Amino acid sequence: MKILDGQLVSQLIRDELKIRVAQLVAEGKKIPHLAALLIGNNGASETYVNAKVKACAEIGYKSTLIKYDETIEEIRVLSIIEELNNNPDIDGILVQLPLPKHVSEEKVINTIAPAKDVDGFHPVSVGKMIQGLDTFIPATPHGIMLLLEHYKIDTKGMAAAVIGRSNIVGRPMSILLSSNIKLGNCTVTLCHSHTKNIKEICQQSDIIVAALGRQEFITGEMVKEGVIIIDVGITRIADASKKSGYALIGDVHFASVSPKCSFITPVPKGVGPMTIAGLMKNTFKACEEMN
Amino acid sequence: MKILDGQLVSQLIRDELKIRVAQLVAEGKKIPHLAALLIGNNGASETYVNAKVKACAEIGYKSTLIKYDETIEEIRVLSIIEELNNNPDIDGILVQLPLPKHVSEEKVINTIAPAKDVDGFHPVSVGKMIQGLDTFIPATPHGIMLLLEHYKIDTKGMAAAVIGRSNIVGRPMSILLSSNIKLGNCTVTLCHSHTKNIKEICQQSDIIVAALGRQEFITGEMVKEGVIIIDVGITRIADASKKSGYALIGDVHFASVSPKCSFITPVPKGVGPMTIAGLMKNTFKACEEMN
Repeated sequence: MKILDGQLVSQLIRDELKIRVAQLVAEGKKIPHLAALLIGNNGASETYVNAKVKACAEIGYKSTLIKYDETIEEIRVLSIIEELNNNPDIDGILVQLPLPKHVSEEKVINTIAPAKDVDGFHPVSVGKMIQGLDTFIPATPHGIMLLLEHYKIDTKGMAAAVIGRSNIVGRPMSILLSSNIKLGNCTVTLCHSHTKNIKEICQQSDIIVAALGRQEFITGEMVKEGVIIIDVGITRIADASKKSGYALIGDVHFASVSPKCSFITPVPKGVGPMTIAGLMKNTFKACEEMN
Repeated sequence: MKILDGQLVSQLIRDELKIRVAQLVAEGKKIPHLAALLIGNNGASETYVNAKVKACAEIGYKSTLIKYDETIEEIRVLSIIEELNNNPDIDGILVQLPLPKHVSEEKVINTIAPAKDVDGFHPVSVGKMIQGLDTFIPATPHGIMLLLEHYKIDTKGMAAAVIGRSNIVGRPMSILLSSNIKLGNCTVTLCHSHTKNIKEICQQSDIIVAALGRQEFITGEMVKEGVIIIDVGITRIADASKKSGYALIGDVHFASVSPKCSFITPVPKGVGPMTIAGLMKNTFKACEEMN
């Protein structure tokens, strides 16, 4: 069993980006600039946004964090995004989800200029991804693909189970893994709340992407020997023994599953840091194409 | 075994559209107008476009067929599409595929205004479909969903195999059937040329969408009792006994498969006419939203 070390690979990618930024600086060129919009006081959202801003600083990107109270009107959110769209210094725009209920996620995402859509959630980005065109891949799926690439995992012909059909992870992962691309060509079964025989599907799978958000859902008897496990789940559990006050639990029961795996991502330090790496790559790409 | 009668259901849909067009005329409103662009002399393409133009005439839509020799320059094709985009009388634009090699399908599709994209191939349309937003569903998948709807087939919880991952049929069908929508919520396995065990996957499936374009690929021993079969394949075989000079063969071996089915689409008169119905519905929708 080999750990797919997201923290390590994410660091390698960020180190490479750091060198490329230094080159841009040396050449007197514009450096990438990410704008992040955070609305409300969701603790997890704050943690995620802070990690992204920190990664920007480490690499040498500019970043602008815009925070608003959750009472902000939808129309004001949209006009902020329009301003960011029109600001030539901003390369990438990230709106941390979820949004307060009175602000339409759909409207917000559709307002982001596709050329600055570093989260890859705009319909244009999604449509291009499906058609195999060059675009922004959503950060988490992008990070997972970068991880598979680093460990030279040849997915061609594998049976893959993707569990969870969110637009953020499950759906795009099912598309990427089943596409005719280098790290694709899997036979993907997309599972969700109406799937009757998840256990059997998992047992038949060479690769499982668990992205349903139910802690330790995948257990040892659900997987076959040699399986590759990508654990996207992150559930916060109160834990007084931790400095942060909480522990992070994945969708996979690591103790029973990992002995059967050829590769497995841990939680934390697996997919989480790779999401940051995916976003940082997207932001660089946005800057490159804009300038 | 019950036949999913595409010809009948397509006719019912077109009859309904005919009544709605008559209402528009009675109210002095604009009637739908489809522009079809056909390049080159591909026999199958001509047949398809002619069938679409004929359906428009029958329903009472206006239609404009624009034909060019296959030597037309790409830039000219794009400028024709721009003209159609800017023409307020045109509601829907259809470019018959395939295009000659020197004309980029991607560029052509991306040039069509999303509001007139009745074929549903523009990235914006595809992206919206994935996100479950209101949009144009590509004509063939749309027609298949209308057929399932007519026969009140409750797909929820079914295991579905979609064979073929084209952007025109297989990929969008896999997305629709797996989405959290009325005729979705299947557990979909998307199969393609790198899938190792298509036979076993088919044998485990409650519904099979065959869209790989290999004549009579699905045979009786590959399916289980009670399966629902959607046969999208249309291969033309020379047949002197037919007036047209050819016979149409599906991807399913009807003689051995149909006795095991609960429902099956025939070829011809199954998915083919439903594709026309899907396109006609999309064209009406385009007109409705434009005016």
